[in-house]
Order: sequence, then C-alpha cells, then structure tokens
Amino acid sequence: MVRLARKLLAEGLGTALLLAVVIGSGVMAEQLSGGNVALALLANTLATVGGLYVLIEVFGPVSGAHFNPAVSAVMAWRGALPRAALLPYVAVQLAGAVLGAWLAHGMFDLPLLQVSGKLRSSPGLWLAEGVATFGLLLVILRAPASRAPAMVAAYIGAAYWFTASTSFANPAAVMGRMFSDSFAGIAPDSAPAFVMAQLAGAALAVPVASWLGKPASATEERR
Amino acid sequence: MVRLARKLLAEGLGTALLLAVVIGSGVMAEQLSGGNVALALLANTLATVGGLYVLIEVFGPVSGAHFNPAVSAVMAWRGALPRAALLPYVAVQLAGAVLGAWLAHGMFDLPLLQVSGKLRSSPGLWLAEGVATFGLLLVILRAPASRAPAMVAAYIGAAYWFTASTSFANPAAVMGRMFSDSFAGIAPDSAPAFVMAQLAGAALAVPVASWLGKPASATEERR
Amino acid sequence: MVRLARKLLAEGLGTALLLAVVIGSGVMAEQLSGGNVALALLANTLATVGGLYVLIEVFGPVSGAHFNPAVSAVMAWRGALPRAALLPYVAVQLAGAVLGAWLAHGMFDLPLLQVSGKLRSSPGLWLAEGVATFGLLLVILRAPASRAPAMVAAYIGAAYWFTASTSFANPAAVMGRMFSDSFAGIAPDSAPAFVMAQLAGAALAVPVASWLGKPASATEERR
Amino acid sequence: MVRLARKLLAEGLGTALLLAVVIGSGVMAEQLSGGNVALALLANTLATVGGLYVLIEVFGPVSGAHFNPAVSAVMAWRGALPRAALLPYVAVQLAGAVLGAWLAHGMFDLPLLQVSGKLRSSPGLWLAEGVATFGLLLVILRAPASRAPAMVAAYIGAAYWFTASTSFANPAAVMGRMFSDSFAGIAPDSAPAFVMAQLAGAALAVPVASWLGKPASATEERR
Repeated sequence: MVRLARKLLAEGLGTALLLAVVIGSGVMAEQLSGGNVALALLANTLATVGGLYVLIEVFGPVSGAHFNPAVSAVMAWRGALPRAALLPYVAVQLAGAVLGAWLAHGMFDLPLLQVSGKLRSSPGLWLAEGVATFGLLLVILRAPASRAPAMVAAYIGAAYWFTASTSFANPAAVMGRMFSDSFAGIAPDSAPAFVMAQLAGAALAVPVASWLGKPASATEERR
Repeated sequence: MVRLARKLLAEGLGTALLLAVVIGSGVMAEQLSGGNVALALLANTLATVGGLYVLIEVFGPVSGAHFNPAVSAVMAWRGALPRAALLPYVAVQLAGAVLGAWLAHGMFDLPLLQVSGKLRSSPGLWLAEGVATFGLLLVILRAPASRAPAMVAAYIGAAYWFTASTSFANPAAVMGRMFSDSFAGIAPDSAPAFVMAQLAGAALAVPVASWLGKPASATEERR
Repeated sequence: MVRLARKLLAEGLGTALLLAVVIGSGVMAEQLSGGNVALALLANTLATVGGLYVLIEVFGPVSGAHFNPAVSAVMAWRGALPRAALLPYVAVQLAGAVLGAWLAHGMFDLPLLQVSGKLRSSPGLWLAEGVATFGLLLVILRAPASRAPAMVAAYIGAAYWFTASTSFANPAAVMGRMFSDSFAGIAPDSAPAFVMAQLAGAALAVPVASWLGKPASATEERR
Repeated sequence: MVRLARKLLAEGLGTALLLAVVIGSGVMAEQLSGGNVALALLANTLATVGGLYVLIEVFGPVSGAHFNPAVSAVMAWRGALPRAALLPYVAVQLAGAVLGAWLAHGMFDLPLLQVSGKLRSSPGLWLAEGVATFGLLLVILRAPASRAPAMVAAYIGAAYWFTASTSFANPAAVMGRMFSDSFAGIAPDSAPAFVMAQLAGAALAVPVASWLGKPASATEERR
C-alpha cells in the first residue's frame, strides 16, 4: 500500500512536471520567437527531449515513469503493471497533467484556468497520432532498461517533427494541453479523436513487438 | 526461415519508419520555416538523428538495422550477412522506403503518389555522396556494437551539413525520396548517379577499415 | 587540508568556467542573432548544456562539482559534505562566479566591470526559480553517479525554456550574472528574491526525494 | 613501423575529415542561412559536435584521435606519445587539415585553392583561444577513456559559443581554415597569434590537471 502510494506520487509529480515542461517551453518559445513557428517548435522540442529524458531517469525506478495512460494500459495488458494499479495510475496521470499546465501558467504570470481554442482535426492528424503512439510503444516494449530514457526522449523529439500532429502520443498530454490556450494547446473538441487514435496505435504495437521477438536481454545489452 | 522473415519485417518496417522520419520532418520543417532553409534543414537534421538512433536501437538486435542496400551489400561481401539474404534485404528496404514516403504523405494530408522534381546533379554532389557513404561505412565497420546507434546517428547528423548533398548515403533513401515532391525529395533523373557514388564510397570504406585494423573489441569497449 | 584545497580549486575553477560559458555564450548569441531572442536563447542553452555536462564530468570526482551554494547547502544538510567545508565551498563558488563573468568579458573585448540593469521581478519568475531549483535538487539527489552529469545538463537545458526565468537555479549564477550587463545578466535589485526562491525550492526537494525512496543503487544502475 | 604508419593514417584521415566537417558545414550553413549568422554558427556547431564525436570514436583506438598538434605535443610531453612520433603526427595533421579543406571545397563545387581573408585579431580573441585550448586539454587529460569522445565533442560545441573566437583550439584547424575563404576561415596574418595562444593555453592545462589529481580511474568510471 505504501509502495503504491509512492508510485502514484511519482506518476503524478512526473506527469505534472512533464506537462509543465511541454507547455512552459511552448509559452516561452512562442513569446520569444516573434512568429517564427519552426524556431518555436525547435525550442519546444529540445526542452521536451531534455525534460523527458531526465524525468524518466528520475521516476523510472519508482513507478516505471509511464506518465501516459496508453503506456500504463499496455503494461497492465501485458502483466507488467498489476491490473488493480491501472485506474489509480491513470487518475494521477490525468490530474498531474492538469496541475502541470497550471504550474506552467503560474510561472509565466498567465491566468491559471484556460481552455485551448486550437483545433487539431484531420485524417492526417489522426493517422499521425496513431503512428506516433505505435512508435512510442514499440520503443518502450523493446528498449533495454538502461537505454529506455534516452530512447524514449529521442523518439519523441523526432516525432514532434515527423508526425503532422507534433506527436502528443499520450492521453494525459491531451488532457493537460486542453487546459492551456497556448502554443502546445488542443481544443477539447479535437481531443477524443486524438485519444482514440493513440489507443489504436498503442494496441497495434503490442503484436508487432511480439513478432519482432524478445527485446535485447541484459546480456545482449552489455555487448 | 522464420528467422529470416522476422529480419525482413524489421528491415522493411525500420526502413519505412526511417523514410517517414526523413520525409515527414522535411515536410513539417518546410511548412513551418517560412522559407528559412537553414532552419528547415536544422529541424530535419535533428529529427533524423533522433529517429535514426532509436530505429537502430529498436531493430538492430533483430536484423542489424541496415535500412540501406549499400550497408547490406558490404555486410554480405564481408560474410556478416548470408549472401542468400542480400536480395531479400534489399527488396524489403526499397519497398519499405516507398511505403515510408507514402506514410509521411498520409500523415500530412498530402497526395500519396508524388514524384520529386528536385534535380540534384553536379560533380560536387556526386563526390559528396561518395564521401558521405564512405564515412557511413567506416563508422559502421569500426563502431563497437553498443555505441553503433549513437555513432551512426551522430555521423548522419553531421553529414547532413558537411556534405553538399545533405548526405543521402543510402540507395533506399534515394528510392523513397524520389517518390516525394517535398523538401527531402530527389528527381528520378538524379538518382542513378547518386546510387553509383554511394556504392563507390561504400566499397572504398572496406579496405580503409581493414588498413585501420580491428575495431575496438568488447574488452576495449569496457575501458 | 590539502584535499580541501584541491576541492576548493575545483569548485572555484569550475564555477568560473560555468559562468564564463553561460555569460560568454549569451554575449556571442546576442551579438550574432540580430535581435532574434529565441535563437539567442537556443544557442545560449545548447552551449550551457554542453559546458555544464563537461564541467561536471571533469570536476565531479574532485569536489562533487556543485558550482552552486544551494547544492552545497543541501549536501551539508544531508551529511554528504562536511559542514566545515560549506562556507569555504560557497565562498569560492561566489568568487569563481564573478571571475567567470570577468573572463567572459575579457574574451569579448568588453569592459570587465559591469553591473546588469536587467530587472527580473514578478511572482511568476519567483515561482519559476523555486520550481527550477526544486527540480535541479531532485535530479541531483536521485541521479545515479554515472549519469548525473548528463542528467543535470539535460535538466538545465529544459529548464532554460520551461521556467519563465530561464532557470538560474543557483545563487552563484545570480552573483556572477549580476556583474554582466548582457543577455544573461540580472539587476542586483532582482537578486535577493531569486536567491530566496532558489533556497526554498532546494529545501522542498529534500523531503520529496526522501518520499520517493532510495535512488537507483549501483546494482540497479547496471540493469 | 607498421603500427606507426597505421596511426599516421588514422591521424591524417581523421584530421582531414574533421576539417571537411568544420569547413563543409560552415559553407552549407552560410549558403542556406541568408545572412543569419547565429543560425549559421548553430548549424556549424551541431555538425562539428556530431562529427568530432564520431571521429574520436572511430580513430581513437588506433592513434588516440588527437587531430591536433597541441594535443600531440602535450601527450609527448607527458610520455603518453613516443617523442619520435610527435613530428610525424604533427606533419600528417597539418597535411590532413589542408586536404580536408580541399575536400570540402570539392564537395561544394568551389575552387579548391583558396586563402581566407577573414581577419581574426584582438586581445580578446587571443585570450579566447588560450581559454579554449586550456579547457580542451583539461578535458582530455581528465576524461575517462570511455567518455572522452562525448566530452571533447560537447566541450567544443560549448566553446564555439562561449569563446569569442569560436574556439579553433587547434593549430591544425588554423592551418586548414587558412586555406578556405569561407565562414570558418582565418586570414594567414591572424594565424600565428592564434597558434601561440593555443600553445600557451595547452601548456597551462598540464599543471592545473596535475593539481586536480588523478583523473577518474577505470574503477571510478564504473560507479
């Protein structure tokens, strides 16, 4: 019981900080870039890569550092997370995401309560979210533990650019970003389709990872 | 037989995702950068570095993560790939590359079928492709296994800038990028000379790597 | 006694070089960027990340590579630094920071003695400094030793963007940057509130790190 | 004798490729950046970091991957390089550097033979070259072998920005860049003072590294 509480603290705090990184760096980038969207996304990407890498290193040994209901669902499906822990994990991830958005707003002296007006809706974007989340789960399911933080961070950095949606790939990220009317935001109306595409992509990654065989073992890892 | 099928799945899927990264991030960068080509190439580079690193980590233990007929040819030449596997490897790499281009187009709501009109043809560019592929093979032939993903990704990131051609260095990349009329594209007329230069550069790397002696052994790797 | 002198040399030289990196790259970025603040901060960030990583690797085995009175205070609090060493550590850090600012000015042919006129004062900025320093200490307290340099550098790189204050997170950095009327500077009037927020954030990290449990052990580190 | 020849091949080829990276990426960056110098230097920096990392990994086990007469001189001074090898090392480094400049020019369809007209001369720049080379040698003398490639590359990336001279830190780099009238060039008249400052900085690093004590041993490296 104590151990689950500690894991939930890690998931909640980690997800809050992740969203603070994503949204906060988006606000900073938008404020400084004078309308140069490529430059803003580049700064947003690099901050996210650095922050995500560190957060997975810091919280991974405690809770697995999912920060993402789609990841937790796959882990529960595969027996790597006790099924009874799934709902609490998802709950603190969603709550943490919203708190992270508010933390970002507070740091930038912005109104805490916001709702995004940025519509993100097209077949391409839904395909992009499916591909982004498929790739994320494939990376997670195959990464040797010691390299997972760098691999996940590098993957998300690439996916910010190669997917048309800038790769939310995470229902908790959708949740937090709904509550920020800023560079990284997403209008609530656009959220359900993003989440469905994410779950479909995550589900598809499970059999593909199985077809590819066992990930590198601890032995192979020391090649 | 099953094992070859699994390797081919890894090569095909990995090459498709690689081209989706290269082309997709090129489209995104071009759309956002408002004509600032240096900024677009910078974003394209960073996305490629991150994506390539992850793809080699993910698929390397299965198939070697060549994603590149020139690499597979050198590996078959040196006996590191069974010669009977060479043609199937090249076939799935080329097919995967085209599918990856289409996947990128789908994510960006662009017409799937495109042919590039971007001519890339000059003695300097051919020299650049030869140098780029020579360097790539030198890195691959000398990299300790555990560092190969980071080394190859870092090399390609540098080569995007120091070679005049932005370093295709891969006949499968030429194939996929022929079918994308975007930032990363290459006109079919320019393709054969690129591929010939790549194969010449790859071939030159083999004796040079031999002259340099054995790569760092597993023992040295644990320095 | 000799050993403390060596540690103090490491802390003083390391902090001087850190401030030379932060301020020098800020000057260079401001001079070259033609008013594009996002681009200037991006260059400033990448230089800081690279420099901080190397400085921690180089000086860490000698002195712990704190370069930061808030870090030294927490280490003394937890018994990881002899309490008698705290004041000397802080003294050389503060002196090194000012020398580093002067070194940066010398390299850029600027007047050595400057005082910043850049006001940085708002509730959001103070919250940002608290969050930034809380995160920094959380990372330091939980990082496995072999990964600490990369983790701290990546964290600061992210924090330059996701905190509204560009993450000073270090009273010695405040000290050095007070004496530079450049991109990275801070007006003396704004300094005390920054330092108080930093110390509060650092203090908060101690119980949170304890709640999260022991950091990854040497065994886990070799996963 | 064979072994020295192999080392010289590594030093010569490595230095040539290093200069091709530095100069080639500078040409590309200048051509694409439309006068945005900060963006050009950022691309030049990232290409150099990636290329230098890979070149040290590839050639380090053969020759030590100095690519730099100042480094070779310090190594000979400390007995880590046989003194009889110093002159041959320096000779192939200087020759390789010029060949690398020509290779870059060839790839970009530029005249092979050029002389830079870019004056780089001021007390600040000389101080900067001294600091840059001091730092480089300090990093090299203290880096654990397995981390030296990443540390040297990260250091140079930072030094491109925090030193006013963009950190040549290498007499062979001065040599190659004299023969390129491009972004990375240096006028021959400015070269001698740069080299003298570099040698002074390198010499200063030797006692400082000694004062700091032994670098991390192989045991510590596995912390």
